[in-house]
Amino acid sequence: MNGAEALLQTAIKAGLEVCFANPGTTEMPLVRALDDVPGMRAVLCLFEGVCTGAADGYGRMTGKPALTLLHLGPGLANGIAYLHDARRARSPIVNLIGEHATWHLPADPPLATDIESLAQPVSAWLRRNQSAEELAADTAAAIAAASVKPGQIATLIVPHDHQLDPASGSVEMHALPTLPTVSDAAIEQAAQMLRSDRSAALFLGGYALRERGLHAAARIAATSGCALLCETFPARLERGAGRPTLKRLPYFPEQALKTLAPYQTIILAGAKAPVAFFGYAGMPSYFITPEQHQAVLATPDEDIPAALEALADALDAPLTVEATAALPRPSRPVGALTPESFCAAVAALQPAGAIIMDEGNMSSGAYFQLSDAAPPFTYLTQPGGAIGLGLPCATGAALACPDRPVITLQADGSAMYTVQALWTQAREQLNVTTLICNNRSYRILGYELMRAGVQEIGPQARNLIGLANPPIDWVQLSGSLGVPAVRVETADALVVELERALAEAGPHLIEMML
Amino acid sequence: MNGAEALLQTAIKAGLEVCFANPGTTEMPLVRALDDVPGMRAVLCLFEGVCTGAADGYGRMTGKPALTLLHLGPGLANGIAYLHDARRARSPIVNLIGEHATWHLPADPPLATDIESLAQPVSAWLRRNQSAEELAADTAAAIAAASVKPGQIATLIVPHDHQLDPASGSVEMHALPTLPTVSDAAIEQAAQMLRSDRSAALFLGGYALRERGLHAAARIAATSGCALLCETFPARLERGAGRPTLKRLPYFPEQALKTLAPYQTIILAGAKAPVAFFGYAGMPSYFITPEQHQAVLATPDEDIPAALEALADALDAPLTVEATAALPRPSRPVGALTPESFCAAVAALQPAGAIIMDEGNMSSGAYFQLSDAAPPFTYLTQPGGAIGLGLPCATGAALACPDRPVITLQADGSAMYTVQALWTQAREQLNVTTLICNNRSYRILGYELMRAGVQEIGPQARNLIGLANPPIDWVQLSGSLGVPAVRVETADALVVELERALAEAGPHLIEMML
Repeated sequence: MNGAEALLQTAIKAGLEVCFANPGTTEMPLVRALDDVPGMRAVLCLFEGVCTGAADGYGRMTGKPALTLLHLGPGLANGIAYLHDARRARSPIVNLIGEHATWHLPADPPLATDIESLAQPVSAWLRRNQSAEELAADTAAAIAAASVKPGQIATLIVPHDHQLDPASGSVEMHALPTLPTVSDAAIEQAAQMLRSDRSAALFLGGYALRERGLHAAARIAATSGCALLCETFPARLERGAGRPTLKRLPYFPEQALKTLAPYQTIILAGAKAPVAFFGYAGMPSYFITPEQHQAVLATPDEDIPAALEALADALDAPLTVEATAALPRPSRPVGALTPESFCAAVAALQPAGAIIMDEGNMSSGAYFQLSDAAPPFTYLTQPGGAIGLGLPCATGAALACPDRPVITLQADGSAMYTVQALWTQAREQLNVTTLICNNRSYRILGYELMRAGVQEIGPQARNLIGLANPPIDWVQLSGSLGVPAVRVETADALVVELERALAEAGPHLIEMML
Repeated sequence: MNGAEALLQTAIKAGLEVCFANPGTTEMPLVRALDDVPGMRAVLCLFEGVCTGAADGYGRMTGKPALTLLHLGPGLANGIAYLHDARRARSPIVNLIGEHATWHLPADPPLATDIESLAQPVSAWLRRNQSAEELAADTAAAIAAASVKPGQIATLIVPHDHQLDPASGSVEMHALPTLPTVSDAAIEQAAQMLRSDRSAALFLGGYALRERGLHAAARIAATSGCALLCETFPARLERGAGRPTLKRLPYFPEQALKTLAPYQTIILAGAKAPVAFFGYAGMPSYFITPEQHQAVLATPDEDIPAALEALADALDAPLTVEATAALPRPSRPVGALTPESFCAAVAALQPAGAIIMDEGNMSSGAYFQLSDAAPPFTYLTQPGGAIGLGLPCATGAALACPDRPVITLQADGSAMYTVQALWTQAREQLNVTTLICNNRSYRILGYELMRAGVQEIGPQARNLIGLANPPIDWVQLSGSLGVPAVRVETADALVVELERALAEAGPHLIEMML
C-alpha cells in the first residue's frame, strides 16, 4: 500500500464518499488510488471553483465533508473564493492539495508557490504532510477538524513522493467532538428577558434554522410573543408550509435597522450580531443599536437546537404549535416576466422537498416572502458573498440529495464566474434546474452608484456594470456544456418550461429575459 | 479631489493606460473616478482570472503595467492563478484590491478576509493604504515597484473610505530604476569559456529573447560556434525569418537531458538554470549535470541585451550575421486534421507581425519547429504553468497591439478555466483568432499515467481525464459569448477558415476536432 491508498482508505473508512476533483500531474497517485481503493466517487469539475463550491453544497446537505482534490497552489487559488463562502457557511470540507515531490521543491519549479499562505485565510486546519507513513493519520486529523460542528475547512498539502511511498495502512477515526452545550445561565438569562420584554426578538442563524431549532423557536414565540428573525444570508434554512414564518433581515442598512427597530431586546441564537454587508458613510456597522439589549443564547458553534428546546421548556412553552399564518402560496403567474412574477412562478411550482439555491441577487428579492407557504423545502444562500457560488453549490447539493429537485435562482453576472458547473451537472445527470435571471447587467452596482449619489452614470462606469454588449446567449452557452436550455420572455412561458424541467430527470436551464 | 481621483491621476500621469476590471461595491469610488479623471481605459472582464491574465499579456507586449481592479479578497483570489503565471513571466502588473472601509472592517463583514495572506505569494510589492492623502504616493510606489525591469507584481489594498476621503492631488513618478549592468568579470568569464570550449551552449531566457538580445546571441554563435538554446516556456520570444533559430529545451526530463548532453559548457543568459517541471522518481531536478560547466552571464534581472552585446564584442564577433538556415516554411496542409497538420497550417498562414499565444499543450508541440521560417512574429507561452492563461493573455496582448493579429493555440481543457475571456474579446472587438485543440481530454494526464507505469487506466481515472462526456460544443460556447466560430475536421477546412478569420477584423474561434 502506498501513501495515496492509505489516505483514501482512511477517508472511506471515516464515511467520506465524494471527491470533487480537478487533478494534475502531482495528484496522479491519488487518481490511481481512486480505482485501486473502492468506495470514493470522483466527480470531475472543469474549474476548481466548481470543486470547492460543490463541496460546500454537499457539506450543507449531508453534514459531512466531501474531499476536494486540487492541483498545487494555482489549483487551490482557483477554489479559494468558494472556500471563503464555505467558511462563512460553516461547511465541512477536506481539501487535498497536491504538491511537488519534497526532493524537487527546492528547485523552485514553475508551479511552486506558497500554498500555506494561500490556504490560511480559508482554513481552520492546515497541515503539510511530512511522510507517507503519516498520510493516514493526517487525513484522519483533517476529517476530524472538518467535522467539528457545524463544520470547518481542513486543508492537507500532500507531496507527490509521499503519495507514492509505502505506508502501513489506514487509520480509524476517533469519536468526533459534539457541539458544546449552552450553559443554564445563558438559558435562564434569555428566559428572563423574554418574560419581561414583550417586544423581544430571537435572531436565528446556523443550526437554529434546521427542523429542530425552528420547532423550538416556534414554541418560544408562541408562548413569549417574541418575533422570529433570521440572518440575511443563511447557509441553510428549512422553510415552507408548517415551518414558522421568519422575518429575514434585509440587506441594505436602512431597511435592516428599520426591521430591528421595534425590538428592545434581541437574543442571538446561532447567529453573530448582524452587521452591514458593506460600510456606508453615516450608517453603523452593527445593526443592533447601543440602546437595544443584546444577549447571546447560543453562538454558531454551540448546540443551538438543544438551547432553544431548553429555553422553550424554561418558558413552559406548549410542545406543539400551530404554524404561523403565512402568505398564501401564489398562483401561477401570467403576463409579463418580471423579478416578481419569476419568484411567484418558482414559489407556485416548486415540489415538496425542493432545494432552492438562491443567488438571484437583485432579481430574487421577492422570492423569500412569496415562498412562505410552499411545500417544505430547503433554502440555501451565500453567507460569504463571493459571487458565483450558485451553480457549484447547487451541483454539490444535487449530488448529495439525488432524490430531491434542486432549483437555482441565478443572477447572470454571477453565473459567469463558474459556468463550468453546468458541464458537471450534465455529466452526472443531476436534477438541477437553473433559472438564469438575465438582466444583462451587474444590477446591484448600478444601484450602489445611485445610493452613492451618482446622478448620471458616466460611460466608463456604465461599461463596467453592463453585460448587454455583447449579450450572452444562455441557451447556447448551456447547450454547449450539455445542459438543455430554453429562453422565456413571459411568465406564462416560464410556468410551462419550469413544469417541464421539473418533470424530467437531469439538468435543465431556463434563461429568463428580465 | 478624493483619494480615488488622486490614485487614478497618478497612474495616468505615470503613463498607465488600461485597467482590467471586475469591480464591486467597495470599488465604486474608483469606478466613478474613471469617468471624472480622463485617460484610463477600463476593460470589463467577467471573471478576475481574465483581468490578471490579460494584464500579463498586456505587460509582456508593452513593457509597462496595466492596472487590475479587483473586489476584496475573493476577487483577488480568483485572479491569483494568472498572477502566478505573470510572476513567473516577470510581467509588470499593478493590482488594485478594494477593501472594506477601515471603520467597518472590525465588524468582520461577510466578504472580509486576509487579503495580505492571499496576495503575498504573487506580489513582489504589497501595501495596505493607510489614508486618502497617501493614496497617490502609494500608487506611485506600486507603479515603481511593478516597473522594476523586466517586471514585477505590485498589489495595493485600497480601503473604500480612503477612496472617498479628500486628497491633495496626484504625485509625479521618480525616474524608474534601470536594469543592473553585468560585470566585466562575468563577460570575460563567458568569453573565456566560449573561446576554450567549442561544445558550449548559451541558454537564453527573459530579455535575451527579444530583438536586441537575439541579434547579439547570433553574433556570438557565429563567431564562437556555440549552440543557442532557450527556455521551455519563454514569456516572450521574437521568432521567425531573420531571427536566429533556437533549440527549445524539451518539456520532459529524458528529452531535456538528451538535448543538453552534447554541451560541456552551458552559459545562462537571462534564464535560471533549467529544472524539471515536475519531479519524476529517478530523474534529477536540475537538467545541467554536475559534470557540465555552468556559468551565469546575466540573471533575468540584469541588463541581458547589453551583456550579450558586450560578450559579442569581447569575442570580436561580426556586427551582422546571416540568419541560420531554418526549416523551410511549411506549405498549406491538406488531408487529415492532426496536431501536426494544425501546427503546419498556423505556420503556413500566420501573417507578418503575428502574436502567437501557445497554450496548445499536448497538441501544439510541433508548432515551434514548423514556425522557424514564418514571417517575424512574437511567441508567448506560460512560464508559470497555471493552465487557462491562453485566452486571457491573448486578450491583453491584442489590446496592447491592436494592429497585430493574435493567434491563440489553445488546449480545450485549459480553455475551460477562463472561457469568459471570449466575451471581452467580443466586446472590445479584438483581433484574436482562437484555435481550440479539441481532443476531448486532459491528454497530458493520460500521458502522465502512462509514464508512471499504469498499464490500464481504471474507470475513475479515465473519468478524471476525459472531457468527452458530455462533449463540449465550442462553436456554440463561443457564439454564446459573442465570438463567431466554426468547426473544422480536416486540414483543408482549417486552412480555409483560418485565412478567413485572419482576413476579418474582430475575434474568431475555430474548433479543431483533433
